[in-house]
Amino acid sequence: MTSVSEEVRIDTAALHASVRDPALTSMTLLNDITGRYPEAVSFAAGRPYEGFYDVSALSGYLHTFERHLSDGLGLGEEAVRRTFFQYGRTKGFIHHLIAQHLEHDEGLTVDPESVLVTTGCQEAMVLVLRALRSDPQDVIFAAYPSYVGFLGATRLVDMPVRPVREGPTGMDLADLAEQIRAARAEGLRPRACYVVPDFANPSGVSMSQADRRGLLDLAEREDILVLEDNPYSMFHAGTGRLPTLKSTDTNRRVVYFGSFAKTAFAGARVGYVVADQPVVGGGLLADELAKLKSMLTLNTSTVAQAVIGGFLLEHGCSVEHATIREAEVYRRNLGAVLKALDERFGSRAPLRDAGVSWNTPAGGMFAVVTLPFRADDAMLEYSAGRFGVLWTPMHHFYAGEGGFHQIRLSFSVLSPERIDLGVERLAALVDDRV
Amino acid sequence: MTSVSEEVRIDTAALHASVRDPALTSMTLLNDITGRYPEAVSFAAGRPYEGFYDVSALSGYLHTFERHLSDGLGLGEEAVRRTFFQYGRTKGFIHHLIAQHLEHDEGLTVDPESVLVTTGCQEAMVLVLRALRSDPQDVIFAAYPSYVGFLGATRLVDMPVRPVREGPTGMDLADLAEQIRAARAEGLRPRACYVVPDFANPSGVSMSQADRRGLLDLAEREDILVLEDNPYSMFHAGTGRLPTLKSTDTNRRVVYFGSFAKTAFAGARVGYVVADQPVVGGGLLADELAKLKSMLTLNTSTVAQAVIGGFLLEHGCSVEHATIREAEVYRRNLGAVLKALDERFGSRAPLRDAGVSWNTPAGGMFAVVTLPFRADDAMLEYSAGRFGVLWTPMHHFYAGEGGFHQIRLSFSVLSPERIDLGVERLAALVDDRV
Repeated sequence: MTSVSEEVRIDTAALHASVRDPALTSMTLLNDITGRYPEAVSFAAGRPYEGFYDVSALSGYLHTFERHLSDGLGLGEEAVRRTFFQYGRTKGFIHHLIAQHLEHDEGLTVDPESVLVTTGCQEAMVLVLRALRSDPQDVIFAAYPSYVGFLGATRLVDMPVRPVREGPTGMDLADLAEQIRAARAEGLRPRACYVVPDFANPSGVSMSQADRRGLLDLAEREDILVLEDNPYSMFHAGTGRLPTLKSTDTNRRVVYFGSFAKTAFAGARVGYVVADQPVVGGGLLADELAKLKSMLTLNTSTVAQAVIGGFLLEHGCSVEHATIREAEVYRRNLGAVLKALDERFGSRAPLRDAGVSWNTPAGGMFAVVTLPFRADDAMLEYSAGRFGVLWTPMHHFYAGEGGFHQIRLSFSVLSPERIDLGVERLAALVDDRV
Repeated sequence: MTSVSEEVRIDTAALHASVRDPALTSMTLLNDITGRYPEAVSFAAGRPYEGFYDVSALSGYLHTFERHLSDGLGLGEEAVRRTFFQYGRTKGFIHHLIAQHLEHDEGLTVDPESVLVTTGCQEAMVLVLRALRSDPQDVIFAAYPSYVGFLGATRLVDMPVRPVREGPTGMDLADLAEQIRAARAEGLRPRACYVVPDFANPSGVSMSQADRRGLLDLAEREDILVLEDNPYSMFHAGTGRLPTLKSTDTNRRVVYFGSFAKTAFAGARVGYVVADQPVVGGGLLADELAKLKSMLTLNTSTVAQAVIGGFLLEHGCSVEHATIREAEVYRRNLGAVLKALDERFGSRAPLRDAGVSWNTPAGGMFAVVTLPFRADDAMLEYSAGRFGVLWTPMHHFYAGEGGFHQIRLSFSVLSPERIDLGVERLAALVDDRV
């Protein structure tokens, strides 16, 4: 009866297709190359600046939040303890502080009940996509190049993404309209369009005021939702920024994603979604998303929420105020990148005729350089090994369907001196290849 | 061109079916009834005992873990800071402490690389189910009554669950074999079987040694995985407990789910999965699950991991040692429940002929009482309003397909006095209905 027993071996072909997603392989490969050149100047790392982090602040945040519960909200000792230790409200317990932050920093008035606190913005995206993917006909739209985290979330729930062209001011609305039309002609059901209007990752571009209005109008006409993701808007380059889509959204077309990864800290894994769309029969979309969250992770970690709550409270619920120093670093670094590029490739530079161009983001952590040669993974390896400079091939953000001459420069964790050295090395690579 | 604009209204019929899952409606209804009778004795709450929680311990845990990173692992200041604040290893950074806990408390030797730290055990279940649901033919098996969190996870990824009968010692293996055969005959692909071998929620039953061996043999014969969920095994009633399935699993058939919700605290949302199955082409199933996690929530919250890490370190990585007091409370309360039931419905009790019976769990937080009348939601409402006692109708754990005469008594947060009063009131209900 018993056969010779053997160890299980799992064939990934029998696992969900998302484990074989090319984006994952891309990231593994990039991390591998980056890991093998620890001395190189790295424009590859997308993580936030860490110079101002202080571990002892964490206990302070916990204490601040504890005092807020007892003195601010009047909770008794037992209720305070329960807030920290027990399963809690699935929608979270710092929603009121997030609403105050949005009022203060974005001029955005939201009902705290429409805020769902999530395990990072990544979970928020998965929840919204899971909710919207109810049928094989459902489809979603996003500008390419696109944020890899968003694409990953679509893979997990089998939500097909239709790429939309991106121009110098973000998503090409005429192309979006065309893609929606084409999808409907195929019998598909367009549900939403994902957009990062301010200083997008990876392209660094921002939407114009006219396009913001245009996108809301188009969403209205086409009866789709707009998924607005806003992780970077605090980090404008000094010239200010435009209002979020959500703050001009009179008809609740916009589902708004917020993150504390770049403003407080990434490790906490605290983000949120504002989903104030009313649901037929009562309640808000946020409540439907909370149902899904109760099956995915339950409440967002209480200690993580408490730490972010304390962070907000210590800064009067102004994230802009809390991140003055970080914003200054990113502004300085963006300036250093643009200056270094101009000095090597600008109109009066030695390599002015090499055919190198770049964009001028109005903020954020990323800029894009177009090179006169194919800038793929093999070229990255060559760049790292021969010239000691790392960057991210843009084709990874096009799902392999474009961007083969473009590279992303991420400058969030570098000093101006390292930036200059890195662009110097990039110039040496260009000089070698042209 | 512009029509009269209107507010969006979301029709839940156009959202993923899981938002309409009957289990969610059940839980909402139960919470609603419970909420309306705050003075009733509640055998409904499944949350852990909270008498020993201390908010100030949290900062202590953070500090203990920080010292472990610097003094124990020799990390420099920058690396310590990065561990707390930045995006981190997707598989987590307390995997080595979890491996020590398993060695110490379960006699289970695991490669720390096979441990994936997750946002509560709930996320671990979603990840495993997401991985295994690669095709519409995939199907999974679980004993009914079943844990609602597991059923919720299956709904999120559209994984069909085939119910298996449960007897006094857990899953009926003959029925499991029969259900697998039937599924294959329908062209389905059985992937795994979910089981809580110790003090299951909701039934309180535990698997016998023979059935544990039998389940592993059956999994081998049928080429399926066993998903072992072990949230309660620390809380045996004094007579010890049997080895976990994983600790006798020589062929890596078992994927093991662990939770700190009932041992450290639920709010942290830290759990894990041991997935040491080798993958064709290299790596472990844990690595494939980590790929999915990188698209779902990224790393588990650093502060939550650090708090649980500190908790483990302060108890020499022995959860059994850390939960001596809680185990005593649950043991005392289980004894109080069984005594109170015997005094009201036992062979020498006034209501001995009423047809009330119950099981005798060997540990955990739950017992099941069978009543001589239909114990559904309407009866719960009657019980609460008229007699001041709350319990959970078992039919909610059968997906509405059974258990209509059974109720779950959860005794984790009550005192012996309240337990006695509650069973007194339950007796009054029975006396009223028979």
